[in-house]
Amino acid sequence: MRVLFHSWFCPFSRKIRIMLAEKGLECELRVEKTWERRTEFLMMNPAGTVPLLLEEDGTIVADSYAIAEYLEEVYPEVPLMGPTPVNRAEVRRLLTWFDVKFNREVTQHLVSEKVMKRFLGMGQPDSSAIRAAAHNIRAHLDYIGYLADRREWLAGKNFSVADIAAAAHLSVADYLGGVPWEVNDTAKTWYMRVKSRPSMRPVLKDFVAGLRPPKHYAQLDF
Amino acid sequence: MRVLFHSWFCPFSRKIRIMLAEKGLECELRVEKTWERRTEFLMMNPAGTVPLLLEEDGTIVADSYAIAEYLEEVYPEVPLMGPTPVNRAEVRRLLTWFDVKFNREVTQHLVSEKVMKRFLGMGQPDSSAIRAAAHNIRAHLDYIGYLADRREWLAGKNFSVADIAAAAHLSVADYLGGVPWEVNDTAKTWYMRVKSRPSMRPVLKDFVAGLRPPKHYAQLDF
Repeated sequence: MRVLFHSWFCPFSRKIRIMLAEKGLECELRVEKTWERRTEFLMMNPAGTVPLLLEEDGTIVADSYAIAEYLEEVYPEVPLMGPTPVNRAEVRRLLTWFDVKFNREVTQHLVSEKVMKRFLGMGQPDSSAIRAAAHNIRAHLDYIGYLADRREWLAGKNFSVADIAAAAHLSVADYLGGVPWEVNDTAKTWYMRVKSRPSMRPVLKDFVAGLRPPKHYAQLDF
Repeated sequence: MRVLFHSWFCPFSRKIRIMLAEKGLECELRVEKTWERRTEFLMMNPAGTVPLLLEEDGTIVADSYAIAEYLEEVYPEVPLMGPTPVNRAEVRRLLTWFDVKFNREVTQHLVSEKVMKRFLGMGQPDSSAIRAAAHNIRAHLDYIGYLADRREWLAGKNFSVADIAAAAHLSVADYLGGVPWEVNDTAKTWYMRVKSRPSMRPVLKDFVAGLRPPKHYAQLDF
């Protein structure tokens, strides 16, 4: 069977898991502790990052950008990148928005301070980084609200990887108690719509021992 | 005419400039000082980043990942992403390698310390960041050498955006005196081959007043 090497609080892994589910592609999940820099894993991906997709025929696809484009090319039956080049450009612009900008300004702060430091025993969380994330996410929620107010889905008429990437980052931040949903109702309503998709269910069921998400985390109506 | 908003030491802008030239697509260059956060520019790209492509029909494509994929889809005559999905996945893995990893470990340090601080009057360069870049680039040169030793071009048989992205980052680092070419002969020979392509010439002719590149910078045989 197809295998996806992933990590629990990695928004890029979540993005690919949701994408695989949307496309109806089964896959076995294997947790990769990337910080251990396992030789066998580095041989498959010298960058040492998850997600990494291993197809049944042995094809290895590393890096979430490469995997997303690969899945769209090889399994186009359920399209998730948009119907035209211009629409796909908008999907990809938003992918960078969430995977680079949101990640740098929000997700990375929360994950490194609240998860990595704790599990790797790297000392107390840096409260200034957590405060920066809390500040930055407000503008992002407003931007999501702005887009969702004007379009059916974030990148246009169709549900796309842009919605998936945004939901992946938000689900990680939300697990860690970092999303002030009251900031923007339209953003919250959009997220409720994404949450209610069957592809989101397995992701929202992830539960890491010793780290409890807030009560509303997996609730569709919150 | 098509317009590309760019910035002189931005490797992502250079990547798109080289790609446009390889595809034989003319374009007018406009320098955008992204740190000024010009309202008209932010209306085209709320992320405020270059490169940004403005097509003659008014189509706006923001973000270098979106632009590269858009150019490949709309102007496929000179293909630069590889012939098969698996080959394209390799090109894209390497794009992330250079645009994320190399950028974070090398280019960003050099540009922020040697260029931005100077031109924006932000004080003395941080020598520890410059030393980190000098250390990190050695492993990257060896990886480029490793790939170039086993393949015609970095991602396989065909010259691709992977070569272009690598050359874009290296050309920025080289301008700033940050590439110890003696580390790896195969990497150096590969770069000489890229440098000799007509698409690289305009990029290598860029000259920023007050910041002189090393003598070998624009020389094809160095």
